[in-house]
Amino acid sequence: MQLCSFSLSDQATKRYGIVQSTGVIDLTSRLGAECPDLKTLLQRGGISDLRAFDDQPVDHPFSAIRFLPVIENPGKVFCVGMNYADKRQEFAATLDAPTLFVRFADSLAAHEQPLLKPATTSEFDYEGELAVIIGSAAYQVKAQDALQHVAGYSCFMDATVRDMQFTWFTAGKNWQQTGGFGPWMTTADEIPNPQQLSIKTWLNQREVQNDTTASMVHPVAKIIEYISAFSPLSPGDVIITGSPGGVGKKRTPPLFMFPGDEIEVEIEKIGRLRHRIA
Amino acid sequence: MQLCSFSLSDQATKRYGIVQSTGVIDLTSRLGAECPDLKTLLQRGGISDLRAFDDQPVDHPFSAIRFLPVIENPGKVFCVGMNYADKRQEFAATLDAPTLFVRFADSLAAHEQPLLKPATTSEFDYEGELAVIIGSAAYQVKAQDALQHVAGYSCFMDATVRDMQFTWFTAGKNWQQTGGFGPWMTTADEIPNPQQLSIKTWLNQREVQNDTTASMVHPVAKIIEYISAFSPLSPGDVIITGSPGGVGKKRTPPLFMFPGDEIEVEIEKIGRLRHRIA
Repeated sequence: MQLCSFSLSDQATKRYGIVQSTGVIDLTSRLGAECPDLKTLLQRGGISDLRAFDDQPVDHPFSAIRFLPVIENPGKVFCVGMNYADKRQEFAATLDAPTLFVRFADSLAAHEQPLLKPATTSEFDYEGELAVIIGSAAYQVKAQDALQHVAGYSCFMDATVRDMQFTWFTAGKNWQQTGGFGPWMTTADEIPNPQQLSIKTWLNQREVQNDTTASMVHPVAKIIEYISAFSPLSPGDVIITGSPGGVGKKRTPPLFMFPGDEIEVEIEKIGRLRHRIA
Repeated sequence: MQLCSFSLSDQATKRYGIVQSTGVIDLTSRLGAECPDLKTLLQRGGISDLRAFDDQPVDHPFSAIRFLPVIENPGKVFCVGMNYADKRQEFAATLDAPTLFVRFADSLAAHEQPLLKPATTSEFDYEGELAVIIGSAAYQVKAQDALQHVAGYSCFMDATVRDMQFTWFTAGKNWQQTGGFGPWMTTADEIPNPQQLSIKTWLNQREVQNDTTASMVHPVAKIIEYISAFSPLSPGDVIITGSPGGVGKKRTPPLFMFPGDEIEVEIEKIGRLRHRIA
């Protein structure tokens, strides 16, 4: 099942629902005012009860909605860097521990919302990534139990101001509207093994990254074990799991994103996230 | 004026008030239910209206209260690393840009609440720091205007799991109950220049750090300019501004904190923050 957050094109109200081939089944009205968004639905453990709505008619065609970031207001967004073998080689990464930095929720962007290249950089780089959405509280969990705490998976475009990244990442990763998150999440029951998904990125229809999540150095379950050892994870928290090799900074010549460009990332069993650069 | 967050020893309710020499004037009841905490007071711009309460009698002696972190639930806690000349030398820091990492609010601890040394480390290190509390929305502000957005200043004990710090800091800085924040904030009108405050740290009454905020490489106003260029700051957000030299990791022999130790940091015009290690 695919779940998304959205608004109707002519309204400010935030909604969420089940994605079907022709549009969205609106859960906002069906689940009532105590469950106003997808994060609250996760907090209430409500994902497993959605089958009852799954065969209902679509309420809104895609043309009538604007996507929002899958989770609009995550409490924590942890980001893992240097997590694919090729990327580690490109950046000469030597430390074995997971590289970890943080994005604030206000840096997120929705599917088909533009990503904003800061005027001060000419090194606005792409990183297609698998996003993990936490479904239940996870503190000091072991890897073998970790995937039980995952609600689902999504695509993420971790657009990076490369010349402000440094070794601590924060400033290069928190510009407004640079973290594309969508279009929707595929629930974890449809992805029992997150380590066998193909992941590809295209810049202006040219393939620039192509790998599989099997190439992750730290698989999702191990990442959850590592993070939850020190920081409690809650429903709606997000972990982005690093990008394959092929980023623009390490190409000869370098390949960066500029206004008007189109960047897309597609992950098997999830879908394709698309942004224009503005 | 000094403002603090607290609870009464026999109650769970969170309160805040004005600190006097003998105790606290309770603002919680005086300002009503729409203003339940210090962050909300800042959001409402209410700090400048507090003079009316300043001469009222103390409601609670110190013995009747338990301090809470000055701001309990900041939206963002930015941390600046390598910001004192001596510390930069100790760690051989070479990059000129402000070192920036993030603490989540759930890693904070209150004055006189124990700091928790994780069982997995024997390198639990101290870093006494000046904390800056944002009072009004600040996005892309210039250094010359930046201090207008500061509500006040506090002490911070940025206790660090040194062997998990790496170059991205996140994992070494986000263990639960490791970021001491208090005892209170001194409002900015009493500290027109935050770059001339003495700052000292004691481990078991032995002075281990002694410097002045004049030694900061990036002064407070410049830090706010740098951060707010990419990430909007809101009332209640916190910036901790780095630690002087003398940390335990770089001593011969190293000097770390263990259960039973007492760590204190005192900053001129603010006060002294004290924790036991547990």
